[in-house]
Order: sequence, then C-alpha cells, then structure tokens
Amino acid sequence: MTVSTSSVSFPAIFTDGVFLAGCPSRTVLEHVTSKWGLLLLIALSEGEQRWSALRRRADGISEKMLAQTLKTLERDGLVRRHAQATIPARVDYSLTDLGHELSTLLVPLAAWAIQNADDIINGQGSTAT
Amino acid sequence: MTVSTSSVSFPAIFTDGVFLAGCPSRTVLEHVTSKWGLLLLIALSEGEQRWSALRRRADGISEKMLAQTLKTLERDGLVRRHAQATIPARVDYSLTDLGHELSTLLVPLAAWAIQNADDIINGQGSTAT
Repeated sequence: MTVSTSSVSFPAIFTDGVFLAGCPSRTVLEHVTSKWGLLLLIALSEGEQRWSALRRRADGISEKMLAQTLKTLERDGLVRRHAQATIPARVDYSLTDLGHELSTLLVPLAAWAIQNADDIINGQGSTAT
Repeated sequence: MTVSTSSVSFPAIFTDGVFLAGCPSRTVLEHVTSKWGLLLLIALSEGEQRWSALRRRADGISEKMLAQTLKTLERDGLVRRHAQATIPARVDYSLTDLGHELSTLLVPLAAWAIQNADDIINGQGSTAT
C-alpha cells in the first residue's frame, strides 16, 4: 500500500473551494482529528494494542471516551477489535488497511506538532515570516 | 522549504509512547486540527484571502468563531493578518512559513478524507481488512 502525499492536488479535488457544512468529508475529518481519535490512531500505528495500553497512552482519557472513540473508529472502518474469550477477557485493537493508510498522514502531523510545539506555545511561532 | 513526511520516525521522537495530558504538542494538535482551524488552514494554503472569502468557504462558521480561530492561528505563528486602512476596511490573511509547512501535511489529509468519505460514512469502511 502506497500513499503519495506530494502528488495530491487539493484544489483539483475540491474545485468549488467551499467546505460545505453537510459534506461527509467534514464528518470524517472531525472523527479522525478529534482530540482522542487522533491520539488513538497514532498509538495504533505502532501495532496491535490492548485496551489497557491505549488507555495508558492517551493520558487523561476516560473509560467512556475511550470506548466511544474506539467504537466510532471501528464503525468508520479504521480500527479492528479482537475480543478473546479468556478469563479475564482480553480485547485488542489494531488498524485496518484504511486505518494504516490514514496513519501515514497523521504520524507526520503529530511529529511536526512535537517538533514545533515549544516555539508555538511560547509565542516564538508568531515571529515567523 | 522542504517538508519530508516519509522520513519522520514517530517513535523516535516520542520514545515513552505516552501522550501526556500537559504536553504542548497536544495543545498545538488541538489548535491545528480543530474543526475550523483545519478548514481555514487548508483554505489559506491556496494563498492570501479576505475575511469575507474565508467566511464563505468555511461554510457554517460564525463571525465570532472565525475571529477567534484566526486569532489563535495568528498567535501560534501560523497565520498573518494584513489590515489595510481603506474605506471600507480590508483585512487579508495568509499563511506564514510555518503555516505553509503545516499545510503541506494537512492538505493530503483533507484530500484523503474527501476521497474516502462516502465509503466511510456509508459503513463500507468497516468491511476493510
């Protein structure tokens, strides 16, 4: 699976230039860039993980929000859930092919945020030309 | 200015694997992937634009949210504001170098969402392997 980011021409796809309120792409963007959706997709880009590991990595997430966000990502076809009938029950999550494709776009975004966060938050970003 | 997305190794940057609640990168990610922040950065990736054009393109945005979002992006050093002392007053917005760098990561994400939105929203995404 290859995702070429450099060859994507945005205006060619969205010719009218208006981001319509009812456009499904806006709903998709809201799911995948939601506070927790984004962090969970990035965590899962490293491979299958248990519920407890995801909860630990997305510091501050509640059990309810974790369940809700994973359910949305699962319904969107980005995340797969594996429940094992062990005692105690074990539930793992992984990315689908579509989720992997998306994560190749999200990981560089998160890396950019990490690299530039201090300058931006300290207001040094605003001296940029 | 060159942004290489393929060479960014996420785990190498974030070695502990935990997205800490107080980490500045999380605040930055929330600004740039907020519902309106994302759409405005993408619109501005095509060049300088007037307030009225931005309002039209981000369909559904209120004047208040437009002002607030642009202010946040300006303070983050991603957007530049140009006010001209004409009658009526004319205000244009454009991306800074840092904003341009970011937009090269956001535009492919939006293009991906547009390309896959129908399948995802119609639940066909969940049949992905």
